[in-house]
Amino acid sequence: MKITPLSPTFDDIKKAYALIKKYANRTPVFTSRSVDERAGCKIIFKCENFQRVGAFKFRGACNAVFSLSDEEAQKGVATHSSGNHAQAVALAAKMRGIPAYVVMPENAPKIKVKAVKGYGAKITFCESTQQARESTLEEVVSKTGATFIHPYDDTRVIAGQGTAAIELLEDHPDLDMILTPVGGGGLLSGTSISAKSLKPDIKVVGAEPEMADDAFRSFKSGQRIPVQNPDTIADGLRTSLGELPFSIITQNVDEIVTVSEDSIKESMRFIWERMNMIIEASCAVPVSAVFDEKVDIKGKKVGIIITGGNVDLDNLPW
Amino acid sequence: MKITPLSPTFDDIKKAYALIKKYANRTPVFTSRSVDERAGCKIIFKCENFQRVGAFKFRGACNAVFSLSDEEAQKGVATHSSGNHAQAVALAAKMRGIPAYVVMPENAPKIKVKAVKGYGAKITFCESTQQARESTLEEVVSKTGATFIHPYDDTRVIAGQGTAAIELLEDHPDLDMILTPVGGGGLLSGTSISAKSLKPDIKVVGAEPEMADDAFRSFKSGQRIPVQNPDTIADGLRTSLGELPFSIITQNVDEIVTVSEDSIKESMRFIWERMNMIIEASCAVPVSAVFDEKVDIKGKKVGIIITGGNVDLDNLPW
Repeated sequence: MKITPLSPTFDDIKKAYALIKKYANRTPVFTSRSVDERAGCKIIFKCENFQRVGAFKFRGACNAVFSLSDEEAQKGVATHSSGNHAQAVALAAKMRGIPAYVVMPENAPKIKVKAVKGYGAKITFCESTQQARESTLEEVVSKTGATFIHPYDDTRVIAGQGTAAIELLEDHPDLDMILTPVGGGGLLSGTSISAKSLKPDIKVVGAEPEMADDAFRSFKSGQRIPVQNPDTIADGLRTSLGELPFSIITQNVDEIVTVSEDSIKESMRFIWERMNMIIEASCAVPVSAVFDEKVDIKGKKVGIIITGGNVDLDNLPW
Repeated sequence: MKITPLSPTFDDIKKAYALIKKYANRTPVFTSRSVDERAGCKIIFKCENFQRVGAFKFRGACNAVFSLSDEEAQKGVATHSSGNHAQAVALAAKMRGIPAYVVMPENAPKIKVKAVKGYGAKITFCESTQQARESTLEEVVSKTGATFIHPYDDTRVIAGQGTAAIELLEDHPDLDMILTPVGGGGLLSGTSISAKSLKPDIKVVGAEPEMADDAFRSFKSGQRIPVQNPDTIADGLRTSLGELPFSIITQNVDEIVTVSEDSIKESMRFIWERMNMIIEASCAVPVSAVFDEKVDIKGKKVGIIITGGNVDLDNLPW
């Protein structure tokens, strides 16, 4: 395999950490005896559902927004997103005092639309296809001069997402493995850079729904294979793996595993009931990977990044 | 008003704290910008929904179970409860390695019955009236010789419940007020003893559903007025104020306020959506008291004890 220097570097991630520290929450880590008993290992949950805007996405958006020069910043920032990234960009822009323009699909969960509006962003709705999002975004950018902040295919965003693993390994330096869900791949790639830099022998594993297994297939084949509108309940993972994350993941990640829809629903409910915290379906994906023994974790100490807690309470999967 | 020495004393609570420390979680405190903005004050949530068994009840039950002599303990413990106290007694008994006998109403939430069974307790079901519970319990006790642990009318239980406020005031010594829900009154009375001992000028306020306002009416009239099978959504607060808690509350608590069912539902959902944590309807009662300005909290720093997170996910109020 060709080894090229990774971008962002671990140094970029440390700089991002210093920059976003005063805006982002240092989220707590939680443990659960019921979960450990069922999994047969010790699991440390890094609870980004308690992050600002309720998701890790704030880290990347915040780093991107605050990295802009004053001149760039004054024209604002723009993005397309079905949810958490949109909220994250909107809040980070509000904090910097600049405009945010957000393109959202018409079928985005109500709670997410409401939240983005609540942070003062200007929303443009479009059809729920990747193409419609991209063309609508282009129009918005050319009209406003705003800087596009991609949800994952962006060095600054990946650097921001990598900061969660720094905190997790500060709290638990003895982890044997870190698992994250993988959608666009920003979190998994950022996590892999931090984790392998801080602890070269740690395993970093991505978990994905069977119904949106493009990262799994891309990782196996060495070629990026996009997925078309997958119908998984894990709405945060419906997106295809990005180019930049893919290049990092192929060099840095040990394994990508997939789990079934039924298992995702069951694990999600298990965490709600046993840990009394609200997690999105996406977060349940690595939990399922552990419960279903898709990874070798017996007796190990495993970190799982709980990515977010923004759920439409009128539309629960049970 | 006649001033009699309170039982338990603050010393009893400190002893309880030393005793249960190695069994109970030191629960985290959470804050939320959305909540503070809406309330117009700074709110510190003491998150007993992250306590063992998912509720503060573990503190009192644990103190009661571990206070028993070896001779008493070997015959086991017994209680009647619609839920959290039953789980708490069952787990504490399991930890001490003694039998637990639990009388539960037939209509108790499934999730709670399952949990009590999971801790190895023997369950006897009865009709859903106070009388049926008490007579069934008497039978169980006379048959087994087990020690009855009352959910709230018990010095050891109240002492255990008072330990949450010790931790809360250790983390935030500058609170102006502490609010708790009030059902049987164990938490409110224990909290009032700890809080007033540690900080004599602090206000301690109980919050109750309008539909189960016996504590409110008892507090006003100076006479204990029981409530008959109230239909509030806050199932943890359907019970009547106990005799011992009443005697403490009349001497020690500054105010009891009531809130509507609609407000409870709305506050519950607000906390779920904004804080991504699962709280029972009972916990939303003091939150409603603050949101509905039932107490004078503008600009103050207020502690709220979040009592539990055991919710039947198949039966949500929205």
